[in-house]
Formats: sequence, structure tokens, C-alpha cells
Amino acid sequence: MKGMVVMMRNFTYYAPTKVVFGRGAEAEAGRLVREQGAKKVLLHYGGGSAKRSGLLSRVAASLAAEGVECVELGGVVPNPRLSLVYKGIELCRAEGVDFILAVGGGSVIDSAKAIGYGVACGGDVWDFYARRRKAEGCLPIGTVLTIAAAGSEMSSSSVITNEDGWIKRGYNTDFCRLRFAILNPELTMTLPAYQTACGCVDILMHTMERYFNGGERMELTEAVSEALMRTVMRNARILLSEPDNYEARAEIMWAGSLSHNGLTGCGTDGGDWASHMLEHEVGAIFDVAHGAGLAAIWGSWARYVYRDAPELFERFALRVMNVAPGASAEETALRGIEAMEDFYREMAMPLSLRELGVEPSEEDIVNMAEKCALKGGGAAGVVKRLTAADMAEIFRAAR
Amino acid sequence: MKGMVVMMRNFTYYAPTKVVFGRGAEAEAGRLVREQGAKKVLLHYGGGSAKRSGLLSRVAASLAAEGVECVELGGVVPNPRLSLVYKGIELCRAEGVDFILAVGGGSVIDSAKAIGYGVACGGDVWDFYARRRKAEGCLPIGTVLTIAAAGSEMSSSSVITNEDGWIKRGYNTDFCRLRFAILNPELTMTLPAYQTACGCVDILMHTMERYFNGGERMELTEAVSEALMRTVMRNARILLSEPDNYEARAEIMWAGSLSHNGLTGCGTDGGDWASHMLEHEVGAIFDVAHGAGLAAIWGSWARYVYRDAPELFERFALRVMNVAPGASAEETALRGIEAMEDFYREMAMPLSLRELGVEPSEEDIVNMAEKCALKGGGAAGVVKRLTAADMAEIFRAAR
Repeated sequence: MKGMVVMMRNFTYYAPTKVVFGRGAEAEAGRLVREQGAKKVLLHYGGGSAKRSGLLSRVAASLAAEGVECVELGGVVPNPRLSLVYKGIELCRAEGVDFILAVGGGSVIDSAKAIGYGVACGGDVWDFYARRRKAEGCLPIGTVLTIAAAGSEMSSSSVITNEDGWIKRGYNTDFCRLRFAILNPELTMTLPAYQTACGCVDILMHTMERYFNGGERMELTEAVSEALMRTVMRNARILLSEPDNYEARAEIMWAGSLSHNGLTGCGTDGGDWASHMLEHEVGAIFDVAHGAGLAAIWGSWARYVYRDAPELFERFALRVMNVAPGASAEETALRGIEAMEDFYREMAMPLSLRELGVEPSEEDIVNMAEKCALKGGGAAGVVKRLTAADMAEIFRAAR
Repeated sequence: MKGMVVMMRNFTYYAPTKVVFGRGAEAEAGRLVREQGAKKVLLHYGGGSAKRSGLLSRVAASLAAEGVECVELGGVVPNPRLSLVYKGIELCRAEGVDFILAVGGGSVIDSAKAIGYGVACGGDVWDFYARRRKAEGCLPIGTVLTIAAAGSEMSSSSVITNEDGWIKRGYNTDFCRLRFAILNPELTMTLPAYQTACGCVDILMHTMERYFNGGERMELTEAVSEALMRTVMRNARILLSEPDNYEARAEIMWAGSLSHNGLTGCGTDGGDWASHMLEHEVGAIFDVAHGAGLAAIWGSWARYVYRDAPELFERFALRVMNVAPGASAEETALRGIEAMEDFYREMAMPLSLRELGVEPSEEDIVNMAEKCALKGGGAAGVVKRLTAADMAEIFRAAR
């Protein structure tokens, strides 16, 4: 990427999801589902906190008030599993479900997307994630979001883990773009600090993966991305001492959606995404929180690649991390990486795999690197094209 | 607005338009229309430059290649007229048109939206603009945009002028949101400098109208807006000497869409919009270019109201106009207003009605102010609530 030329790529921007944002917004669930013409809804959710908090019954009441029937399927776990997706597909077919309402975070939405593909397309839904078939549709989906993190509420992506071999794979199409997303920042106030911090890292990383790209640039995209990253960090710090600060929760929640709906990638090559791919390998085997996994890997990735794009890392350091300029672009770049690591540390996020609670053996590392490179067709990343050997080096540095 | 409290308003964000952006993008027209299931298209356009440049025939060929029939209706003028809208509605009905493709700028798109309402809803389409009825649908619409300015390609708004009384009225619904917008910056390269500058003013003003609001704030919205305004001004200056700079055209074109698709208003009360309302009165009678009209009025509006929101004008001055801080918020605010006027001057935009080529009599001014206040239900604006008497003062100051 050295000697990069400022260029701009043709792009398609398509973010059709209707966002209903603010206090008490979940009361709109019934109206929004009915607006979509749905008659029978699958209420899909996770561990039970949505049930305990009373959110699920409020949502169900809002659906009932509009004459919409529903069936429930809970039990989605972080790194959502294919087995539950299969169960959801069967349930939707048996019950004649025509709409999925995901009440939860990114894992629940991703599980809903996979179920939606399965119901609409038939056959084995894993085929899509394994790149053996292309989806031609998806059941319509909406969400009541309970954590600001994954951005799945406006994104075209979903990530599912196949327990047979613990393979974690993503699949992206516009078919799964949500019809609506109900974003009430109040619902995120009771999240533990660790989950809040993981969410903030994930949001930042969705922007950073696009910001650190192969050299195709759009000034407006960069400036919006920088504004978004600064806003997330400022408000994440507020939440450390004021977890129930509505405005801070709201800034982060809206940033989460904008960071992954395509806006921060317009005019560029789409971004690097190597950190995400590396983390997916860790997440598939060790089942860690995605945001924490990203924090544990990013610094090692950045230190391994920054010399290949010193101007980009320098810009990040100056405009996003607000560091004092060093004697050279590379020195400034390194200060920016250190400043981001300091921020992660402040958020009590891990800066290594060990701090993440994971101690991969040398064999694990080689296996993860090979699986990751294979998934990318032999290599991954655009700031620096990483081979399996590069990836293993980054894993080792992150230990 | 003095002593304002930082607050955030619940909001709905809905920008479903698929944007296809870049060099040669108009070749996608046929594919995109067919994707919408359309069989017969109204090709709607303006003065004939789209015809002369060959753009219209390229688009028609792209439609034909996909087996889509089309009929043509040209003749849209700036401040698009109701009489042509009526003609378009008749034509669409007679020909069984099921999709409108607007090839041109904001005026052509706004005319298409009005035709779309008329065909889908029946009755007199002016009823919607006169607030006598509510639309319940609109024909699907797409565009090949030829000027970056109005933002109508992603907005919910359309503005039509009724020649009977020269009444200029806007009407906003989500029904008229475009299905797709083809944005090729190359198509804007041949615009005269005056039209380019008018477009840049319009884009800035769509953001400024929202930025200067009644005190409800969202940090991310403000930061994105500031990034957008700085990007527009920087690239507008580049176009003064390099009108065929692709990157600068592209930055401005994408900023035009983002400035009016709702993004820059999230979490706020929606903004002030008094400058737009005042300009609409001038535009209805004197038929001036919208962007130039806005430039001629904004400074007088800003000087009339800035003491009611000094902190907001101060922030604008420091973060957008990059002025040196004055001894007080008001002094800094005034420097920001002067800096924006300097920018307009640099763009060869008028700073007064006289420079706009318009010399309203005292009677004209009183009439325009009364019509404008009436349209707002007696007053308009939120930074300072303006009565007809206030509006007349602003018109006098702008003379």
C-alpha cells in the first residue's frame, strides 16, 4: 500500500432499515410489524434477561394489541449456533411464521437472519455460509435492540457458528437488511460495564476496519468516520462513571448503527477486516466476547502493518486519537496505536490473548492462521495482505 | 432559545433509497428499473441539456436493453410548475406508466414526485401541497441526477410552484422517497460555475437549517454535520479553479444526498428552516435560483437571530468556519457569520437581494412576509420564532 494514490471507488449505498429511536420506542413494535403486513411473528431472543426485565412481555403485548400472533424461541448465545438456527427454521415452517422479531443484540439478529434465509430459501442454510449456494430471499425481520455493538440492525451481514468443527462464518446480502430497528438507549443502561465496553470496541472496529483500507479514499467518508470514532470514545468514557447517562447511551447506540450500515465505507475498497477475521478464529474456538477479542488482537495487527500505510495511521493518530505529532509519520502512527491501546485499557478491555483469558498453543495458532487464510482464499487484509505465516505472527504477538 | 438545555429528541430515520454512485453509473438505469418490476417508464427531464448531451438517449438505451418501454416528458423548469405536473399525471394515466425516472436535478425530481402522488392518489394533486388532503401513496420513482444541490434524490420532500397566485409550497412524505438514485459526478462537470455554486449553497443550507435548531442536540449528528459542511466548502473552492475535478465533484454530490436524507437532523427538533421559507417567497415571485436566493438571505437572517443562540453560532464559527475565537460568544458568532458570507462572496454568490437581481418594493416585502408567516401558521423558525414583522425586517436587511 506504500505510495498510495488518492482514489475513489464507485459504490452502492443501500440502508433501507427504518430506525425508530428513543425513549420508550419499543411500544412501537406492534405498529411497525403490522405496517409490514405480518400476521404471525417469531419472537426470537437470547438468554432470558429480555424475559426477566419484562421487555419481552411488553413487546408481546404491543404485538397482541395490533392483532399480531406470535411464537417464541429463546436461547440464542453469543457466537450464535447453527443448531438453534435449524430449530428456528423448523418452528417457523410448522407455525406459518411470516416475520421475525429479534429482541436482543447482534447474536439474536444474526440468528434471525440465518433463520430467515432458511425459511425463505429451503435446503441447508449452512450452504450459504459455506459459499456453496446463494440466497435468493429472506423472511422480513425487525428488531428491538438491547445492546449497542454489532450493528447488525442496519447491516447486510450475519455471522453463525457451526458446532460441527466450530467454524464461524459470515454471509452478506441485502435480503437480510432489517425492515425496522427499534433503538431505545434506555434498554442498554443495565448492561454490565464489560459488555458495554465490548460493544464500544465493536462499534469502533466496524469503523476502523473500513478506515484502514487499501488506499481508496473519500474525504467525506473519512471525516464522518473520524467524527463517529471520536464520539464513541468520548461517550464510552462518560459511561465508565455514569452508566445510566441517556445521552451517552444514545450517542453510542446510534453510532453503532451508522458504523456498520455502509456509510463509513462509501467510496473506498471496503476496508481491511483482517482483525475481524483473526478474531473470528479465536471466537470460534474459545468462545470469547467479540469486542474483547478484537481489542486483544487489534494492537498486534496494527503494529504488524502500520509501516505499510504510515500516512493513514498518522491521520488516524492526529484526527481521531488527538496525539501530538511525532518526528515522522511512523512515529506519529505508533503514538496513535498506543493511544488506542490506552483507551482499550481504560475500558478494562484485554490487550492480549492472555488478558482475554485465552492461551492458544503454538499448534492452535498455526491452525487458526491456516483456517483464517483459507477462508480469505489464501490471504486477508488490504492495508497489508496477510498470509497464514503473517497471521500466525500476529497471533503470537498478541499472546 | 437562550439558556438552552442539551436534550435529544426521539427520531425516525428512514432513507431507503438505493444509491448507485460513480463513473458511468447511468448505465445501470435499465437494470435498476427492472429490479423494481417496472414495465413502462416516464422519462421526465428539464430544459434539453440532458437531451443535447446524449445522456437521455444513453438512459433510454439502457431501459430498452432491459425490455422496459418508455414515454418522455421534458420541460421542467427551476421552481417546477404545477401545470406540467398536471400534464405528467394525464400522460402517465393515458400511457399506463408504472415508474417515473427523473433525469435531471431537484426540480425534475420534485416534479416527478408530484406526478407520482397525482397518479397514485387521484383527485387534485395540489390539495396535498395546500394541506387539504394527505397522500396515501406515490408511483415508484428513480433518478439519474445531473446536479448536486437539492438533495431531493434521498429526501422526503418536494416543492412545487402553483402559477395561479405564484404560490410555492413543499410537501413531505416517505411515500415519495426514491427507489434508487444514480449519482455519477461526471455528469455534473459541465455545469456552469454559477449553478455549481448555487448547488453548494443549497447543500450547505440543508445542513445549516438543521444545525441551527431550537436547542435539542445530538453530538454525533452535530459532528457529522460539521464534517459535511467543511467537506463541501473545501471542495467547492477546488471546483472554482478545477471544475472537472472528479473527486471534488464526487465529495459534493454525496454530501448533497447526505445533507437532506435526514442524517443531519437525527435527535434534534428538525431545525430552523426560516431561511428556506423566506427564500421560497422570493423564489415564488421573482423566480430566482434557489441556492442564490438562500445566499442572499442567510446573512440577514443570521444577524437577526444569532443573539438568541450565541453558543450555537459560536460552535459553528469555531468548528465549521474555523475562525479565531473572539472576546465573547457573540463576537465569535459574528465572525462565523462573516466567514460564511466571505465564502459565499468567493463563490460569486449574492449577499443581498439587490445582488440577486431582485428589488422588492416595501409592499412586496410586507406581502412576502405575511404569506410566509401564514404558511408557518403565524410564525416560522426555532432559533428565534419569527413573526411577519420579523420576516419583513429580515427582507429589508437583505435588500
